[in-house]
Amino acid sequence: MVNPLLIMDEAIQLALMGKGYNYTNPIVGAVVVKNGRVIGRGYHTGFGMPHAEIEALKDCEESPEGGDLYVTLEPCSTTGKTPPCTEAIIKSGIKRVFIGVVDPNPNHSGNAIKILNDAGIEVFLGFNEYVCAEIIEDFTKFILKRQPYFTLKAASSIDGMIATSTGDSKWISGESSRVYVHYLRSVSDAIIIGINTVKNDDPLLNVRNFNREKEPLKIILDSKLSISPESKVVRDFGKYLIVATTVSDDAKMDLLKSYGVRVLICKEKNGLVDLMDLSDKLVALNLLNIFVEGGGKVFASFIKEGLVDRFYHFISPKVIGGDGVPLFGDLNCVKIEDAYKCKLTDTKRFEEDILHVYKFNDYTDHVLQLTEKFRNRCKYGCSQG
Amino acid sequence: MVNPLLIMDEAIQLALMGKGYNYTNPIVGAVVVKNGRVIGRGYHTGFGMPHAEIEALKDCEESPEGGDLYVTLEPCSTTGKTPPCTEAIIKSGIKRVFIGVVDPNPNHSGNAIKILNDAGIEVFLGFNEYVCAEIIEDFTKFILKRQPYFTLKAASSIDGMIATSTGDSKWISGESSRVYVHYLRSVSDAIIIGINTVKNDDPLLNVRNFNREKEPLKIILDSKLSISPESKVVRDFGKYLIVATTVSDDAKMDLLKSYGVRVLICKEKNGLVDLMDLSDKLVALNLLNIFVEGGGKVFASFIKEGLVDRFYHFISPKVIGGDGVPLFGDLNCVKIEDAYKCKLTDTKRFEEDILHVYKFNDYTDHVLQLTEKFRNRCKYGCSQG
Repeated sequence: MVNPLLIMDEAIQLALMGKGYNYTNPIVGAVVVKNGRVIGRGYHTGFGMPHAEIEALKDCEESPEGGDLYVTLEPCSTTGKTPPCTEAIIKSGIKRVFIGVVDPNPNHSGNAIKILNDAGIEVFLGFNEYVCAEIIEDFTKFILKRQPYFTLKAASSIDGMIATSTGDSKWISGESSRVYVHYLRSVSDAIIIGINTVKNDDPLLNVRNFNREKEPLKIILDSKLSISPESKVVRDFGKYLIVATTVSDDAKMDLLKSYGVRVLICKEKNGLVDLMDLSDKLVALNLLNIFVEGGGKVFASFIKEGLVDRFYHFISPKVIGGDGVPLFGDLNCVKIEDAYKCKLTDTKRFEEDILHVYKFNDYTDHVLQLTEKFRNRCKYGCSQG
Repeated sequence: MVNPLLIMDEAIQLALMGKGYNYTNPIVGAVVVKNGRVIGRGYHTGFGMPHAEIEALKDCEESPEGGDLYVTLEPCSTTGKTPPCTEAIIKSGIKRVFIGVVDPNPNHSGNAIKILNDAGIEVFLGFNEYVCAEIIEDFTKFILKRQPYFTLKAASSIDGMIATSTGDSKWISGESSRVYVHYLRSVSDAIIIGINTVKNDDPLLNVRNFNREKEPLKIILDSKLSISPESKVVRDFGKYLIVATTVSDDAKMDLLKSYGVRVLICKEKNGLVDLMDLSDKLVALNLLNIFVEGGGKVFASFIKEGLVDRFYHFISPKVIGGDGVPLFGDLNCVKIEDAYKCKLTDTKRFEEDILHVYKFNDYTDHVLQLTEKFRNRCKYGCSQG
């Protein structure tokens, strides 16, 4: 017999394969089971590509007729870039559909459940629903707020310092931690760093260890366009975008362009790039998963604007001392009550280091409540997850 | 059938009951098992009191003859403040002895194993040996270095700040964390804070929630004897010790004495209390478990002297920002390689907070190696733990 939770776990793993390729689409994974064994697997490989359900049905090594379909997210029921999945599922002869969570897109929410039920298909709702909701948080935020999902990342000593008093920061964290950072970069649409980090570290911001077809866009916040044309990020001829608030130096603009570097002009706020304006412009460019790698001043600006959704904090077991460079820039908290609140949601170990994942915003609740609401509307099957 | 690992766990729990009462003695727990059930339990309740083995044998509800004795530490074999335990064990008719780890005291190491073996008692060595070694780390350090075991404790935001820019620090951590701190205080021989913490927070340093017969001694590092006679720690009429490097103000000394506060004079080092001299004086006072609660300058001094053995770091899920007060004072690290290294050895959750336990020194290895060495000398029984 198959364990439905383990099958849904497999669908989740498949969904994650599409991370970094889906722009404004959610990632989805699907598995077809018949006579107690998996006969087909699929995931949404990229924006505009066939949906996970279609891929899994196509992948079947025998006819899916009479089988079970497991899918992390409610199937689509409308014609978008591809025909509705509900139609394909009905045609395939699938008898039961196990859905992780309901689609937060109000144009879809609950529709597929009704259509499948009306076609005589049993629908079970809510398997591994927390994880199914968590892997689409970027999409849920986009649906609810039309903003990208911002993830901050930093490595510090146990006392929260990212560099010594002289600015040395190589290497605070261990190699395994750094490899994981390259994975996190690889599944992001864009990486943001501040101009000070370019000046101090002259980084390349490339993705090593993870060969992906698509490199994330590298964005440098440089309100005064003070970047040196000798920086590695300029000389790399890679996919770089410099965000400035002024265009006084046309010669520099031309030089940067000659290296393939684009310049985006955003509004100014307190002498810096207005991050709310940048957020809008990133959405317009279909860049939804943004990985912010510092420095501390950039972190502080994002925190002040309430734009931080998640923070990956790698802690290396060493003490640098109070004369080091702190994780975040000034935040002007007067009382402890003024501190910005978050929630520890995950920890992982990497050799000697520990990773803490904090959430400042949680969009899973919205999806879980929606799923709860539609659970009782499943006509045939009904699961308590 | 009894599970020897679970019985040894029970002996470890019993041993921990004696924490805070043993001065220069190690904590020890013992359990007697006969016919598949526990018939007696005991622990070393305090310095100079009967040993755990004697307490467990006395506690037996039927004759221990033919039974098994479980003990976290190798029994003593010499007459100290009490007669040798080996003698009592042999007399009791116990048939088998399960020992956690070998006694690091060179006057005892391995002796009991030989004596018991010679008396025809089977000895099994090395059950739950890591935990058995860990609970006596303070004792092992004392044996090896004649120094107290120093534990630092602090609560910070996720970015390592212990107060806002205005000095507000109440309350960074949640209530459960704070209750646990009172437990940690209760099992310490002394608590140390710096004079700045007295001036900023005017704390009482008492032990709440845990009624113990013995309060830890409260020590204030105040090299210039600048403490206000109005401080709560002076007015409390409790067990306070002020450590200074000068005695210029006799009137103040007399006033402090009239409140029951003692003043200890230590050598000076860079204008502060010489911590190595303090360490020697604490050993002379039989104070071995020292709980250092800050502030950051005091922490930094202990770290620089290499005196820190363990650091309890409570992390509360909030961000204060770089203009807050950092965990540690200046340490003048130039390169990352200069940072002081430690090892994450444990994590616990307290409501929203997480506790990290770091070790800067590890004395378990010494005891584990010693145990390994004597394992092969067990004549009858022999265990691989």
